Amino acid sequence: MDPRSLPFPFPVVSWREGIIDLIDQSRLPEELVLRSCPDISSLADAITELAVRGAPAIGVAAGWGMALSWDLSRRAGEDVETARKSLADASTILAATRPTAVNLFWALDRQRDLVDTDLAAGRDMETIGRRLIAEAEKIRSEDVALGQSLGRAGAALLADEVTILTHCNAGGLATGGYGTALGIVYAAHDAGKKVSVYADETRPLLQGVRLTAWELQARGIPVTVLCDGAAASLLRSGSVDAVITGADRIARNGDVANKIGTYPLAVMAREHGVPFYVAAPSSTFDAACPDGRAIPIEMRDPMEILGFRDISWAPTGVQAWNPAFDVTPAGLISAIISEHGVHRPPFAESLSFLDS
Amino acid sequence: MDPRSLPFPFPVVSWREGIIDLIDQSRLPEELVLRSCPDISSLADAITELAVRGAPAIGVAAGWGMALSWDLSRRAGEDVETARKSLADASTILAATRPTAVNLFWALDRQRDLVDTDLAAGRDMETIGRRLIAEAEKIRSEDVALGQSLGRAGAALLADEVTILTHCNAGGLATGGYGTALGIVYAAHDAGKKVSVYADETRPLLQGVRLTAWELQARGIPVTVLCDGAAASLLRSGSVDAVITGADRIARNGDVANKIGTYPLAVMAREHGVPFYVAAPSSTFDAACPDGRAIPIEMRDPMEILGFRDISWAPTGVQAWNPAFDVTPAGLISAIISEHGVHRPPFAESLSFLDS
Repeated sequence: MDPRSLPFPFPVVSWREGIIDLIDQSRLPEELVLRSCPDISSLADAITELAVRGAPAIGVAAGWGMALSWDLSRRAGEDVETARKSLADASTILAATRPTAVNLFWALDRQRDLVDTDLAAGRDMETIGRRLIAEAEKIRSEDVALGQSLGRAGAALLADEVTILTHCNAGGLATGGYGTALGIVYAAHDAGKKVSVYADETRPLLQGVRLTAWELQARGIPVTVLCDGAAASLLRSGSVDAVITGADRIARNGDVANKIGTYPLAVMAREHGVPFYVAAPSSTFDAACPDGRAIPIEMRDPMEILGFRDISWAPTGVQAWNPAFDVTPAGLISAIISEHGVHRPPFAESLSFLDS
Repeated sequence: MDPRSLPFPFPVVSWREGIIDLIDQSRLPEELVLRSCPDISSLADAITELAVRGAPAIGVAAGWGMALSWDLSRRAGEDVETARKSLADASTILAATRPTAVNLFWALDRQRDLVDTDLAAGRDMETIGRRLIAEAEKIRSEDVALGQSLGRAGAALLADEVTILTHCNAGGLATGGYGTALGIVYAAHDAGKKVSVYADETRPLLQGVRLTAWELQARGIPVTVLCDGAAASLLRSGSVDAVITGADRIARNGDVANKIGTYPLAVMAREHGVPFYVAAPSSTFDAACPDGRAIPIEMRDPMEILGFRDISWAPTGVQAWNPAFDVTPAGLISAIISEHGVHRPPFAESLSFLDS
């Protein structure tokens, strides 16, 4: 499939009569193929193996996962109590896939709350199933709308001709289909601004060169990739007007967990007087988390560093340290952009919508 | 060949009756093989393709290259004037291979000066040839001795139990065989200190995981690799006692050109109160270069970023920006360690040996 023929917002996660279809991001950019998940364990594998990744997209997938669990129970003829037990098991399995992205837990809770409410209201299994499917679709379509909304808010911060540096992939592929950091790029582009993007390749899994470059190309936006270690020189050169990244979890004080390498990028942006923006929908905020120290950081397989896919370039037996995320302190962040608008420091005040 | 059976200092560049043999570093760690250079163009290719790399090692190779040029002229029966012309051509070809490493130009000049002096003294071609070979061997053995000397000076700065973070490969493979940043590690290890090393993988060409991890393993020193973007989190964790890197060129004011990614590492070391040391022999200092702005930065093939060896992981046609080096300002450097000892700021004074 030609990426330019892909509909936009991208169909990152979709529902096809009891099966969840994902664009398999682990095979991009070489192949644009769907990965079908007919049950919870295959969906959990798809999340763990990063066929679907990016905090908002994981949230969308988890929403469908809960709908799938109930649908499987219904088709198996389970009674309500057994279905509820299956749903709790599904939630436990999905919650164990990725510890850092808070959208995952948010979506699981949202679907479980729906079931609890519906059961209390005496709704039957079939009705609840339809409502879970509708809610999952709503999580997806809301996420697209939130992306468009935060995109417009962020685009308003940018000049008519602007060069953005981003890290990892916070684009359509990382979300319900529109994007957060790249949502701002798309909104600026659609508003007639001349936007060009530098994309950190983002080791170890190269989401920047594999996914961000791919989707910007598909959308006709100029993109240049660079090594993560070269971003400091690029910022020093004066070529970048703003750094914009996504987030996997935002604490109440404005500390941001995001892909490993974000924290040094924020330090280098401050060093060179370049604004550092974080773009995320409200599902990425964790009001219960006081600051970055409380965010669990996922440690991933050392093999991700020692090679790529089937090839290894490391000496046999060498050890590796592979945290998937780091925490950028609130003090380095010029603004956080959500669907509620532009939140500037002090975040204790500007994120007060979280306290409601 | 088992790396543990390799003699140390490593035989990075050696002379075998009119042929220059190099350990082919582009094929490590998978294969330990020699690449033979029987003429100047094959040597220039080996330098360009990074079969031999690291500023001091390039200097050693260039010293042998000049000896090889004269030897080829002698074997071809050229007269002295033709041989001198061939030598000038060889120098031009070799000087064009890598613009940043100053040791290259230093070694070419040193051999050309020898020929000029010998011709003025009326020495014959055969004698000059023998003396060029001896001088090339002296450049190599001096480099090993300088590494050992700066290694001891640097090791004296380290505690008895110490964890070092390094970037790229400034080891035996990058030099005449002993190493600069890793020379300090080897000297500390040999002095009975308990040293462990974290090695940035060092994109795009992965010298950290491919070469640094390989040679530390071969020497029995514990090593853990990490992505360049994870170094900031590692420094924040408090696990690192000192960052030590090599250098490709050091300006008179103490600004240091080194592998891309060194500059953000120095900023992050300052951010977390970890000393940042640069290790280099005096052949890496460029007294004629006032500061980092005067250091030419080599731009390399975008393909180095878009994949690895035969595989590509980038979308077709994507652009890449690939500077091979960056400049770390003197103000971020705790000390520069050479064979003359430990040079601390202000470098205007502590590097005054360059003015003699």
